[in-house]
Amino acid sequence: MRRIISMLLQNEAGALARVASLFAARGYNIDSLTVAPTHDAEVSRLTLVTSGDDVVIDQIIKQSRKLVDVIEIADLTSREHLECELLILKVGVAPSKIPAVAACVRRHAGALLLDKSEFTRTIQFAGTGARVNDFLAQLTAVANIIELARSGTAALDRGEAALAPAVA
Amino acid sequence: MRRIISMLLQNEAGALARVASLFAARGYNIDSLTVAPTHDAEVSRLTLVTSGDDVVIDQIIKQSRKLVDVIEIADLTSREHLECELLILKVGVAPSKIPAVAACVRRHAGALLLDKSEFTRTIQFAGTGARVNDFLAQLTAVANIIELARSGTAALDRGEAALAPAVA
Repeated sequence: MRRIISMLLQNEAGALARVASLFAARGYNIDSLTVAPTHDAEVSRLTLVTSGDDVVIDQIIKQSRKLVDVIEIADLTSREHLECELLILKVGVAPSKIPAVAACVRRHAGALLLDKSEFTRTIQFAGTGARVNDFLAQLTAVANIIELARSGTAALDRGEAALAPAVA
Repeated sequence: MRRIISMLLQNEAGALARVASLFAARGYNIDSLTVAPTHDAEVSRLTLVTSGDDVVIDQIIKQSRKLVDVIEIADLTSREHLECELLILKVGVAPSKIPAVAACVRRHAGALLLDKSEFTRTIQFAGTGARVNDFLAQLTAVANIIELARSGTAALDRGEAALAPAVA
């Protein structure tokens, strides 16, 4: 099963390496991962997506909780949550297809043309993973992908719940 | 100096841990990192932002290039590039401030209301890091941050250049 694991980490050298190593030691692939500081510069928030045997992932979560840098950790998949993802995409466009690419960008809320050259367009798109996939499929029908970067899933609890720092 | 390092990785368990460990071994903090599959499911693209002594970072880049999972690596900071970032933000809102929060969302292209409860609003925002910071500053003038997740910087070369896989 696909799992979205969210954690608050001390923003320290080595914190990410220790978390990533726990997954690697079990042979678990991390499908996507994002980590960046929060509004508290000492604390980063890490969101990772993985899939595999539930029992093993639960063990990894328990082990992660014991790491010195991990302030809080939760499996958001088991809670009502919101998720989104960012895509930057560069496509090669034949002159005859330029209007079709522009129409595709206009048709998708969350899409923004960032840059153009004679034969390329670079586009930003933000939305759920499913909408990112749909946007990609529609664009590749009229243009060739040269390169892309996806941010991976970022997620928060829906409603008033939050991944709060543990009370000391 | 702030550096944006972009790499193409074999999508294998342990690849991220090996890259993160190289930085940790030198005591270098990773400010933000995103990694997710590309249009080729076997290949992930990783973007990390770090800062520090240029000579040491150049050494880390050279060492990363030797890792078995690293297909290609480049310092995008030294090239013309495009960067953007995704934010999901949950704020607590007093009833009197709800119109001000809604106005802030409307005023910012790239902002989207994802969810609301009686006392909260959850908002998605995509843009450059500077625009994310500006949006955060304006929202915190009228609401309290409950939690947030930033994706970290995603980046591509501007124009026709690309981080192409190395030719074997």
